[in-house]
Amino acid sequence: MSLALDATAQDLLFREAQTANTFTDEPVTDEQIQAVYDLVKYAPTAFNGSPLRITLVRSEEARRRLVTHAMGANGPKTLTAPLTVILSADLDFHEQLPRLFPAMPTVKDAFFSELAAREASGTQNATLQAGYFIVGIRAAGLAAGPMTGYDFTGIDKEFFGDGKQKSFLVINIGKPGAEAFHPRSPRLEFTEAATTV
Amino acid sequence: MSLALDATAQDLLFREAQTANTFTDEPVTDEQIQAVYDLVKYAPTAFNGSPLRITLVRSEEARRRLVTHAMGANGPKTLTAPLTVILSADLDFHEQLPRLFPAMPTVKDAFFSELAAREASGTQNATLQAGYFIVGIRAAGLAAGPMTGYDFTGIDKEFFGDGKQKSFLVINIGKPGAEAFHPRSPRLEFTEAATTV
Repeated sequence: MSLALDATAQDLLFREAQTANTFTDEPVTDEQIQAVYDLVKYAPTAFNGSPLRITLVRSEEARRRLVTHAMGANGPKTLTAPLTVILSADLDFHEQLPRLFPAMPTVKDAFFSELAAREASGTQNATLQAGYFIVGIRAAGLAAGPMTGYDFTGIDKEFFGDGKQKSFLVINIGKPGAEAFHPRSPRLEFTEAATTV
Repeated sequence: MSLALDATAQDLLFREAQTANTFTDEPVTDEQIQAVYDLVKYAPTAFNGSPLRITLVRSEEARRRLVTHAMGANGPKTLTAPLTVILSADLDFHEQLPRLFPAMPTVKDAFFSELAAREASGTQNATLQAGYFIVGIRAAGLAAGPMTGYDFTGIDKEFFGDGKQKSFLVINIGKPGAEAFHPRSPRLEFTEAATTV
């Protein structure tokens, strides 16, 4: 079964791409991250709500504050990456809906007047966007090191004091360094992951 | 800023791809979905846990049961798609961890003995995988119509009676039909979605 996507792109994004655990010193620029964003921003979210927010942790001081919330080896790994980003869901994403989803101006008030609804939808859709973003990092020729081993409640207090952002993923980004990759672990077979009804 | 990914692939996956609202009659085969899966299965999840499960809704009877849980226009849309899939998180994904993450055989018991931990991590990582899967559908030259407007608690009872699956997204898949696409809505600018600290 052949795909429409060419083999080189398949390898770049999926087949040969792997989570990087070490990085070279080569800087990752704002322009590179903007190019990633400007590619993946088109991928779908509910009502085009686009709740993902990206915090680029650039200053030494911010990086040191971030790693106080890391678990295990994630702290040292983060300190050696040329760029680390915090991904969060904007719990006030609904404020942008009249502009982002002009086809249905009622959506903002009909579905998202309650914070709990914004938190559920915002987190779900920002997480979908995180999937697109990881693919986009690879599309830029960079390696990603996504980490869920952080105290995200701590990160929210540290960086988003107003309670309007709910962080859920930290990603190291850069060119892979020495011994960056662990051996590829097995994946589930299609017949284990898929069922027909 | 140029990306490593070639422009044709950028267009196929992101820049020209759009959510489809109508489809042709052309069937979507199991082989096509397997090709999508076998591409995107390599993208990262926490501890390689790979909690996403895909239910292909093929029989007329299953399709009719599914749409009883649809909101608004999603029911009629689903009935005209050549294939609809339910994406869910397997809450027992941890049972596979000793095989999927052999580097750390203790992970299963250390982190996932509690159902609440499996539900949080399983849902988050299955949602990341849903993002990869939507990209993969486009990589196969197909259009996706992802829908969150379903009663997922109802779907879980209807299709996953044992309580071991938590559904969160339904996706129509096929070749786009007549007037399949709405006009592209605006996206947030990079400076609106990204901040530097």
